[in-house]
Amino acid sequence: MQPVDLVIDRLASVATPERVLVDAAIAASAGRIVAVGPREEVLRAVAPAHGAVEIDGRGLSAIPGLVDCHTHAVWAGSRIDEFDRRAQGQPYEQIAAAGGGIRATVAAVRGATEEELTALTVRRLARMRALGTTTAEVKSGYGLDAASEAAMLRVAHAAGRSAGVRISGTCLALHALPPEAASAAAFVRTAIDEILPACEPYATAVDCFLERGAFSAEECRPFLEAARARGLALRLHGDQFSECGAIPLAVELGAASVDHLEQTGRDGIRLLAESGVAAVCLPLCALYLDLPMPPARALADAGARVVLATDFNPGSAPAESMLSVLNLACTRLRLSCAEALAAATLAPARVLGLEREVGRLEPGYAADIVLIADPDWRAACYHLGEVPARVV
Amino acid sequence: MQPVDLVIDRLASVATPERVLVDAAIAASAGRIVAVGPREEVLRAVAPAHGAVEIDGRGLSAIPGLVDCHTHAVWAGSRIDEFDRRAQGQPYEQIAAAGGGIRATVAAVRGATEEELTALTVRRLARMRALGTTTAEVKSGYGLDAASEAAMLRVAHAAGRSAGVRISGTCLALHALPPEAASAAAFVRTAIDEILPACEPYATAVDCFLERGAFSAEECRPFLEAARARGLALRLHGDQFSECGAIPLAVELGAASVDHLEQTGRDGIRLLAESGVAAVCLPLCALYLDLPMPPARALADAGARVVLATDFNPGSAPAESMLSVLNLACTRLRLSCAEALAAATLAPARVLGLEREVGRLEPGYAADIVLIADPDWRAACYHLGEVPARVV
Repeated sequence: MQPVDLVIDRLASVATPERVLVDAAIAASAGRIVAVGPREEVLRAVAPAHGAVEIDGRGLSAIPGLVDCHTHAVWAGSRIDEFDRRAQGQPYEQIAAAGGGIRATVAAVRGATEEELTALTVRRLARMRALGTTTAEVKSGYGLDAASEAAMLRVAHAAGRSAGVRISGTCLALHALPPEAASAAAFVRTAIDEILPACEPYATAVDCFLERGAFSAEECRPFLEAARARGLALRLHGDQFSECGAIPLAVELGAASVDHLEQTGRDGIRLLAESGVAAVCLPLCALYLDLPMPPARALADAGARVVLATDFNPGSAPAESMLSVLNLACTRLRLSCAEALAAATLAPARVLGLEREVGRLEPGYAADIVLIADPDWRAACYHLGEVPARVV
Repeated sequence: MQPVDLVIDRLASVATPERVLVDAAIAASAGRIVAVGPREEVLRAVAPAHGAVEIDGRGLSAIPGLVDCHTHAVWAGSRIDEFDRRAQGQPYEQIAAAGGGIRATVAAVRGATEEELTALTVRRLARMRALGTTTAEVKSGYGLDAASEAAMLRVAHAAGRSAGVRISGTCLALHALPPEAASAAAFVRTAIDEILPACEPYATAVDCFLERGAFSAEECRPFLEAARARGLALRLHGDQFSECGAIPLAVELGAASVDHLEQTGRDGIRLLAESGVAAVCLPLCALYLDLPMPPARALADAGARVVLATDFNPGSAPAESMLSVLNLACTRLRLSCAEALAAATLAPARVLGLEREVGRLEPGYAADIVLIADPDWRAACYHLGEVPARVV
């Protein structure tokens, strides 16, 4: 009998997500899952230690803590006016070209102190956690100089510690051209020589916004190669407004993922499926910008590794809820509830290199457990805006 | 100086919604707004009584309590499995034809006690209120016999009193054909002779599901005429899956609204604009069922009275948040934030005949005030899933 400090008993259903158990129990010790299974089996195997937390799971279900592998959760300033202008028909790319969009947030972030940014980010991450997200990737990309980019990632880690969200940092130096840059080529050099080394202590990956009006494949390539040489994983924003070669570049360089994919056609789908590069779909962003939804069903049918994330950011997705993403995955992306949950837990864990740590309710994994206030765990997908009963 | 028992001072912005005030105050007495305007003006005009509640509105904004004029918030049973089947490609109408859909909920409602229904409904209405909805229309339609239909409306009123939501009851007898009905014609007679009189004490309106597979215009007509003779307002579910004559019938009979409109074409838009019959758009339902969005922009441009509601129900919109609807109105229906707010406050108040009571932050109106945790009231539209700071 193994001693444990947490037992959740009589759960109506548990999605691990690879299997679905009914009338189940979960036991954990020191933040690690020790046992999960039919309740009699679990209760035979473990012994609650003195002072252990015992939760009556009757009427509830459990899923793994959600893993949001694509966010821009550190920012300052407001872009509500831009939202209202888009609602009235002004396109996102036109607003960006007029100095709004990402550049507006860069100015606000550079003008904020690290303390101000941390306070704003703690509030956002706490809300994410209340909505079931226990692991989040957070990108830089609103600083665009070495000091500001590194500060953003420090803020993300500090805020994650306060809010109880595990953070994975990504250096998104090639997000937009800062006003002081002489040219794209010059800024790529700055990114490689200054921003990348400054961010490295706080980052496990890098990312680029590969898009018309942002950076080309040939501009991204040296930055990605420099990052790879430092042992960082590679991510790419690709195919959001146009197919500009993100997928072939990602496959060539062995990137962890290409994210967005609203415009991805058959060749791109095939390449992703054959390569195993993860396809990160961001339906909230497509909803906000009225873009076509990413071809998640076709990707899944082709055998690609489909992943879901929020893209939480002040411009194109001011929405932090992975539960909303689960809902959109079922209503707009034609994924089943089981496919959606896997794409929000174990698949993004793998994108972040955390596939042995989070994203599964199995022995040895982190005890990040989201309790849903319904006997059927699929309520997490069904009810838009579901608030979980509790995040353990 | 008028004595008041509530003052909210230093509000960064207030959308009444017909005007937007900055650095404003709101004062109320006995649940009625007494003054709203620039703060010096309001503070000169009123005197807080002993024990008055004074709220510091710094950093916050205010909008009227949201009015949700189309819900089916009373139900029992679960339709999560149906949701998952739809996610996997099975169409809504096929599920309904196989005995799922509305008929599944009818069986569950008939099998539940009034106490059980009330407990379920209180929880739902409390969540709606927490999300800013202070007035809700609730339909019958899952009972389909006189006793069950009347019970549903009693439950709605009782639950509204518990949850602090003002309820407007609607008898939706012609929602689906109950299993015991010999024919549609026979059920229409039952609806007129039995269900309508039983519901009348709890209802201010009636509604019909006018659709292929549900009821035709000619089946709805005698029921609507009988309701009109009793002084009830008329509503119609129309043009959701097909144009079956709902708008011409609504115009002819002087209905308060036609709701859904996903398939409404140019003639229907023109008829609604010319007649003044309100056009109730339900974007959450269109999202869930992957239907085209209702043509809200074209309706507004033509001069129709555009209204927004949730359609909160267990099948096609298990989502109670009018804040989500505000967001979808801006992202999918191409309404500005100001248009969306009017369509969620004063316009639905008029549909419910409550236009002198709710939907405006103006003297004499109910003091249903939603405080938003942002200096810009448009955060209510911008942030998907915004939780208001407080509902006063």
